[in-house]
Amino acid sequence: MDLRSDTVTEPTDEMRRAMYEAEVGDAARGDDPTVRQLEEEAAAILGKEAALLVPSGTMGNLVAMLTWVRRAEEIIADWRAHIVQSEAGGLGGVVGAMVRTIVTDDGILRPRAIEEAIRAPSVLAPRTALVAIEETHNFAGGTVWRVEEVDAAAEVAHRHGIPVHMDGARLFNAAVALGVPAARIVQAVDSVMFCLSKGLSAPIGSVLVGSRDFIEEARRRRQMVGGAMRQAGVIAAAGIVALRTMISRLAEDHARARALAERLAGTPGIRVSPPPVTNMVMVDVAGTGLSAAEFGKRLAEGHNVWALPVGPSVLRLVTHRHVDDEDVERAAQAIRAVAQSRAA
Amino acid sequence: MDLRSDTVTEPTDEMRRAMYEAEVGDAARGDDPTVRQLEEEAAAILGKEAALLVPSGTMGNLVAMLTWVRRAEEIIADWRAHIVQSEAGGLGGVVGAMVRTIVTDDGILRPRAIEEAIRAPSVLAPRTALVAIEETHNFAGGTVWRVEEVDAAAEVAHRHGIPVHMDGARLFNAAVALGVPAARIVQAVDSVMFCLSKGLSAPIGSVLVGSRDFIEEARRRRQMVGGAMRQAGVIAAAGIVALRTMISRLAEDHARARALAERLAGTPGIRVSPPPVTNMVMVDVAGTGLSAAEFGKRLAEGHNVWALPVGPSVLRLVTHRHVDDEDVERAAQAIRAVAQSRAA
Amino acid sequence: MDLRSDTVTEPTDEMRRAMYEAEVGDAARGDDPTVRQLEEEAAAILGKEAALLVPSGTMGNLVAMLTWVRRAEEIIADWRAHIVQSEAGGLGGVVGAMVRTIVTDDGILRPRAIEEAIRAPSVLAPRTALVAIEETHNFAGGTVWRVEEVDAAAEVAHRHGIPVHMDGARLFNAAVALGVPAARIVQAVDSVMFCLSKGLSAPIGSVLVGSRDFIEEARRRRQMVGGAMRQAGVIAAAGIVALRTMISRLAEDHARARALAERLAGTPGIRVSPPPVTNMVMVDVAGTGLSAAEFGKRLAEGHNVWALPVGPSVLRLVTHRHVDDEDVERAAQAIRAVAQSRAA
Amino acid sequence: MDLRSDTVTEPTDEMRRAMYEAEVGDAARGDDPTVRQLEEEAAAILGKEAALLVPSGTMGNLVAMLTWVRRAEEIIADWRAHIVQSEAGGLGGVVGAMVRTIVTDDGILRPRAIEEAIRAPSVLAPRTALVAIEETHNFAGGTVWRVEEVDAAAEVAHRHGIPVHMDGARLFNAAVALGVPAARIVQAVDSVMFCLSKGLSAPIGSVLVGSRDFIEEARRRRQMVGGAMRQAGVIAAAGIVALRTMISRLAEDHARARALAERLAGTPGIRVSPPPVTNMVMVDVAGTGLSAAEFGKRLAEGHNVWALPVGPSVLRLVTHRHVDDEDVERAAQAIRAVAQSRAA
Repeated sequence: MDLRSDTVTEPTDEMRRAMYEAEVGDAARGDDPTVRQLEEEAAAILGKEAALLVPSGTMGNLVAMLTWVRRAEEIIADWRAHIVQSEAGGLGGVVGAMVRTIVTDDGILRPRAIEEAIRAPSVLAPRTALVAIEETHNFAGGTVWRVEEVDAAAEVAHRHGIPVHMDGARLFNAAVALGVPAARIVQAVDSVMFCLSKGLSAPIGSVLVGSRDFIEEARRRRQMVGGAMRQAGVIAAAGIVALRTMISRLAEDHARARALAERLAGTPGIRVSPPPVTNMVMVDVAGTGLSAAEFGKRLAEGHNVWALPVGPSVLRLVTHRHVDDEDVERAAQAIRAVAQSRAA
Repeated sequence: MDLRSDTVTEPTDEMRRAMYEAEVGDAARGDDPTVRQLEEEAAAILGKEAALLVPSGTMGNLVAMLTWVRRAEEIIADWRAHIVQSEAGGLGGVVGAMVRTIVTDDGILRPRAIEEAIRAPSVLAPRTALVAIEETHNFAGGTVWRVEEVDAAAEVAHRHGIPVHMDGARLFNAAVALGVPAARIVQAVDSVMFCLSKGLSAPIGSVLVGSRDFIEEARRRRQMVGGAMRQAGVIAAAGIVALRTMISRLAEDHARARALAERLAGTPGIRVSPPPVTNMVMVDVAGTGLSAAEFGKRLAEGHNVWALPVGPSVLRLVTHRHVDDEDVERAAQAIRAVAQSRAA
Repeated sequence: MDLRSDTVTEPTDEMRRAMYEAEVGDAARGDDPTVRQLEEEAAAILGKEAALLVPSGTMGNLVAMLTWVRRAEEIIADWRAHIVQSEAGGLGGVVGAMVRTIVTDDGILRPRAIEEAIRAPSVLAPRTALVAIEETHNFAGGTVWRVEEVDAAAEVAHRHGIPVHMDGARLFNAAVALGVPAARIVQAVDSVMFCLSKGLSAPIGSVLVGSRDFIEEARRRRQMVGGAMRQAGVIAAAGIVALRTMISRLAEDHARARALAERLAGTPGIRVSPPPVTNMVMVDVAGTGLSAAEFGKRLAEGHNVWALPVGPSVLRLVTHRHVDDEDVERAAQAIRAVAQSRAA
Repeated sequence: MDLRSDTVTEPTDEMRRAMYEAEVGDAARGDDPTVRQLEEEAAAILGKEAALLVPSGTMGNLVAMLTWVRRAEEIIADWRAHIVQSEAGGLGGVVGAMVRTIVTDDGILRPRAIEEAIRAPSVLAPRTALVAIEETHNFAGGTVWRVEEVDAAAEVAHRHGIPVHMDGARLFNAAVALGVPAARIVQAVDSVMFCLSKGLSAPIGSVLVGSRDFIEEARRRRQMVGGAMRQAGVIAAAGIVALRTMISRLAEDHARARALAERLAGTPGIRVSPPPVTNMVMVDVAGTGLSAAEFGKRLAEGHNVWALPVGPSVLRLVTHRHVDDEDVERAAQAIRAVAQSRAA
């Protein structure tokens, strides 16, 4: 049972059939009808003008930053943002940007914090060029920006003439959790990246969405980093199935995450925090005296339950399409067993 | 009839079936068995230790340069190298490298030219960090480096402690043209990128090949530019079919390229140069008084034959799996017709 | 009266005479005897092997980072470090680095915080490549790292194979405040930049100091950013005077900073924090209801006393060679007057 | 006798006095009256709006490129341009630019060559962002762009919306050689860097000149690379003397370069090419059977005449303020002696 991430989800049979049958062309030349179809649907579903298929979420964020930010300019982001922690330093190494991090518990950047982080004009300070927000916020535990919070962040940024990019790798988890259309969530932001390949179960691909001009510029940056693929219709076909059929079922993953948290309540040495609102369960095992790494190792080796250490004492467990109610029960038992074995 | 490039080739039915059935996993975590299979076969076929799947040839070259070259160091390359002309400036914009170009007719860097281009140690000059060669050489007309030429270039570079990267987007065309194993061609070079998605007809994917240490470092650079994909087994499956079944048939493309050149011989206003040795036919239309762009437009609009302008008066026509003998005949007729219409 | 910074100090007459008489040569070729003399004395005074003259402290830090850090690697630094706040984004824009900031009150990075900030090896996270510390710490208020604190930070870094760079723009202020030789302070660090042009009163120049190998590499980076100057002996001559004659007098600046703080004690609406230990007085004017910018404006316009806003409610006043006891008294009166006028 | 470069010239006594007496301030804050004076005079003498003092010619070029060019864009330049050959790779490593080199004999970029080098819009090719020209052209032998040539180059570039930067390290040599005001030469270009520290004999400093907006942006880039100096009035003072008093005397250096070439005419094994028009004499020693390095070594060791190898068989000799008629005679004799000794 692999609870490390929803990135492990495999394509559905419908996706595989769609790939098999996909009408394709040379997408790098704009000639792939299935890619065009996916990009149009993706733009439409987010209420934006245009979209661009990229091979990964990291590339979607990278291309967005390359498009918005010039060298030596600064990006405002949460201290645990994925672009800061887990994109191999591309923010500095490829974009040439600075990052000004805001320390939060939940990954939500409050308007006042953004306002304070925006640089006054100066020959000494980097120019603030982008506010980057993450919906849902991965390392804060799958937390959700509410619509008003997104709007408020964008309002501050825009008042200072600064665009907002949303790393929406799990945007549709947020939409399902909030019960609002994804388009409403991203209404005020200038660019969004979302992943087809996480909870939505497509094998490969993320989509960058924004205005027509933005996407035109982004296309050039995608070329530069090697993201233009040839008969990409084969993966776009799976992406279309993901967009059309896999969003609403994310509610099941969320319910199971809550169920797992409930089953763990009261386990000695174990603390679930924050309470899951999407498909992530953050389990602090400090009370067991074990490190997250060691706890995870025992879970995997003793119970074949895989979780991801994301801090010295924190394990992340992610529910997804391959996890059913029985798995949740079994995972909870395994965690309790490891916690107890320690106590023993 | 699309002769702009062999990048337009669509996956075979066998590839589509392989994609449909592919066993997959999260390749970004190293867990996709089909990707591992492809990487092992690719390394083996080139006689190197390790390989890495990337979504495009441009990314393969970019990741290789990022691995070999530090900022402000210099790459020696032919003036018309693909990395210089057609990779959106990533050599400078992502790698931060300088390029020292050697002007050749045929894209082959002679040992003496390389020797002269290598910088003497100096605080003023950039350090030479890489010799980049291209097999076959695209903008020189699909020309082929012979084995001895590759060996000689590598010998000079290595004598100065400089590694050699081969942009082998069409390496297997060279192997077929030379009648030697690809492994022999790349024996002396330190890294090779080859494409599954050109003449080999896979929908997506290129492979970077080299020593185990090199690939380990390259993996980190691939992550940084967003090239780590999730269930990449779906495209690797097609790639395996490409590697196993599509190489030898490249000989047909080469024969048709020669056939097309022969059929064009003697056409007034038209000059084929250089004589095709792989799957490219470079047609200089200067003698017709038309620009390459205009000639190409007439070919496409009047005859539905698509070619790619690659210079003010030069059109490139590329044979591939979707071009048969009849197409060659029809393309020749169309070209003669356009050339003649002009004369009229 | 200009209390914005000690960077406003003008060269002494002895420095001007030294410049007038300086024996010079082409320093970019290593032929300037006075530059060589300065570099030797600077290395000796810090107990290191070699040194390199640069035109500014910003360049000294930049060249050090360029030498230690490869693109996409990460630097650990205090959140208010000068390299993060006030070097125009060169850390990202030129070095291509990431920065992982530690939030402190006093600018001192504790060993445990450093340990936690060092990245575990991962293909996802940037590699930690440098720990950067600042002595004295400018935006924390001229705070001083004690010798044991420097040693402890370096011990952690070195245990992980990570070098330590000290932005020692005001290193000699720390040495004087601690009553220890500067060489002892920097004993455990791998490179140090210090400024000749701040409290030491030289007109231009900073010096980067480290091992012979480090300086040799740094020389190439200095060339790249345009820091190699020609007859730099003219400024090195003033720098030698600064090094030989101006260090011990920094104690006067420190005494006057303390005196200014004492005279401000008890002023309604005014809070001096932290208590000055070197030549900086941080005055929080929040209690007056004025912003730092407005308070500074009134000080300048009404009393001709110049201070630098370094936060929404914080003014920085820096004592230096052009500030005598009477000036301190007058500055205190002016501040009290502005604070009072507001109350009125 | 040091004929390696005019960079070895030492400040005049008048310059030293000006430095001694200079009124200074904190130039990084814009408070140095002597720097402002120099910048105003420099802008005026070139007929531009504004100017910026930088510590070196390399930095002036770097800052100009950083201001005009975004990452991954392309600069058109002569293949032997100083920015390509001798600025430590900053064009790629700091600017992140590509360079498209034009191969010329004399360093003069003809309009047609520029036109052909400008990229058509394409997602694949880098965008052409700058045409960089060099007046006088160093590695072509101090050759001079005539006014019409500069105008013609700028006309092509501007027609395509591309700015032109002039590396005018020795611009005043060109003005003197052409007998036209420097302002006329640079009339059509958008930015110019010239050096105070070469033939003009100031110890340190170059000036970047352009529109007010350009200089405002350039100031930020100068800060980023560490080029903002403190009491820079000390070097500006020497620069003002250089500008006011040293230009016309460059004619003497030119006469002496011609004289040296004449004295070498007919020496067996020696070829002067091209004929000197400014202060450089390019001596090809191939006919002596000696390498330039060996010939230079014999000149230095046997005759104390220093020259700079700038190619396998080419030595560069530069006349300047410290070279008088007698020196020219002595240098010619030494060269003849080395050439003859070889023959012997």
